[in-house]
Amino acid sequence: MKIYETVIRVPFADTDRMGIVYHTNYVKYFEVGRTEYLRELGFPYTQLEQQGIWLPVASVYCEYKSPAKYDDLLIVKTWAAKFKGATIVMAYKIYRKGTEELLVKGETRHPVTDDHLKPIRLRNINEELYNAFREDAGHN
Amino acid sequence: MKIYETVIRVPFADTDRMGIVYHTNYVKYFEVGRTEYLRELGFPYTQLEQQGIWLPVASVYCEYKSPAKYDDLLIVKTWAAKFKGATIVMAYKIYRKGTEELLVKGETRHPVTDDHLKPIRLRNINEELYNAFREDAGHN
Amino acid sequence: MKIYETVIRVPFADTDRMGIVYHTNYVKYFEVGRTEYLRELGFPYTQLEQQGIWLPVASVYCEYKSPAKYDDLLIVKTWAAKFKGATIVMAYKIYRKGTEELLVKGETRHPVTDDHLKPIRLRNINEELYNAFREDAGHN
Amino acid sequence: MKIYETVIRVPFADTDRMGIVYHTNYVKYFEVGRTEYLRELGFPYTQLEQQGIWLPVASVYCEYKSPAKYDDLLIVKTWAAKFKGATIVMAYKIYRKGTEELLVKGETRHPVTDDHLKPIRLRNINEELYNAFREDAGHN
Repeated sequence: MKIYETVIRVPFADTDRMGIVYHTNYVKYFEVGRTEYLRELGFPYTQLEQQGIWLPVASVYCEYKSPAKYDDLLIVKTWAAKFKGATIVMAYKIYRKGTEELLVKGETRHPVTDDHLKPIRLRNINEELYNAFREDAGHN
Repeated sequence: MKIYETVIRVPFADTDRMGIVYHTNYVKYFEVGRTEYLRELGFPYTQLEQQGIWLPVASVYCEYKSPAKYDDLLIVKTWAAKFKGATIVMAYKIYRKGTEELLVKGETRHPVTDDHLKPIRLRNINEELYNAFREDAGHN
Repeated sequence: MKIYETVIRVPFADTDRMGIVYHTNYVKYFEVGRTEYLRELGFPYTQLEQQGIWLPVASVYCEYKSPAKYDDLLIVKTWAAKFKGATIVMAYKIYRKGTEELLVKGETRHPVTDDHLKPIRLRNINEELYNAFREDAGHN
Repeated sequence: MKIYETVIRVPFADTDRMGIVYHTNYVKYFEVGRTEYLRELGFPYTQLEQQGIWLPVASVYCEYKSPAKYDDLLIVKTWAAKFKGATIVMAYKIYRKGTEELLVKGETRHPVTDDHLKPIRLRNINEELYNAFREDAGHN
């Protein structure tokens, strides 16, 4: 299982009046992690789109353990947690850089669709990506 | 169980390049629903804060069924789904106004804390709100 | 000159760690005011788009006088400040409801374009809107 | 005059239904540029705050020349454009990395205040920063 790490500097814009990162913004960080994971895997999302492959978000789960603050350097760990051909489940853990304290963890579920949000068979369209997801998600 | 309905007009700002509402923005709509629910219950969140009662977000779950678009009028249905004294679980369903098609549903979990995010006993601080949550959440 | 007023309740999401509305969010409120102004005028933006008429943002100016806070009810006053056929300038003033203290004021400039951002002659495509803008902006 | 360059990868979250970066998000990129400029200068904003020095936003101007898209790598060029002791004016130009086409340019104006937004004399509190701003802004 390949875990990709990407770094995010918390901008002022992402904080709220509690002085911490507003809770929905971590879900945006998940997306940054996912984008970089796909790029690293060799399949930038912009290229997938050109092939008519979309990975829309069907569900999000996010659990908040400890808050991040303005100007913190965060590490988003991203990996493929589950893949059965029709749907890929991505998982995320966010840490403050250089520490081992888990701040946030979560999952997003993505059906593989065309640009009209209709399910497609990834195996027939991009077998390499199909195999990469299979391998990464550990056939589970 | 009391279900509160609030209306949201989708701004251009909340859309993304798929032409639909960007997925994290529904979680912001949950918060609008929650704010109005508390106001309707007689306990505006700004007043709770003055009493040192916070309801931070411990987790979010959000499931996407069908997309909303720019300028849609949405109904956010909000209710207390579970309450056992230390944590309140709020639930949400979002519809396009005047239709019965479910667009999005979800839940948020909130420990009752002070302004340092330390758990407090709501019953001792605001018994009325404690009872209102108890009643609303159906003692489940 | 017609001034349209729209009401916005400040969500938690729009605040920052200074405890006030994050500065770029007022520019989003301008857009809400603009959307409602066009609807009131009889030309909802969604209908304009169907006619191939876009009003993209060419520039924004925003001046901050006094901060708004979470749960404030704001009034956005919106009007057409200038129109010479190719470009419409919209102006905005934001107040806390029920007060006369100006919080924010600003302007946005919008060329009239097609859906490829190419300039078009509004007069030839929607003379009614052309005349409405002319009248509203006081021929200045 | 020192020009600081920072790189931003456009996230999906920042796009809108026109398929381009939503206009207010460039103003957030200005803030990222400003944060990195101050860090580079040797005065991270988090440290300034600890000294009771705030640089709130008094006004924003932003001009849109050409749109950025999802996954674009942007360069934000940031510099101190004007400083007279009480107010610093920061200026910004945004390019797509590796090109010379100007996408967006703008300015933000910042009074130097304490944490109650009251004006302070920067020279008396942090003479080094005062001098750095003076030097950078070219005494103009």
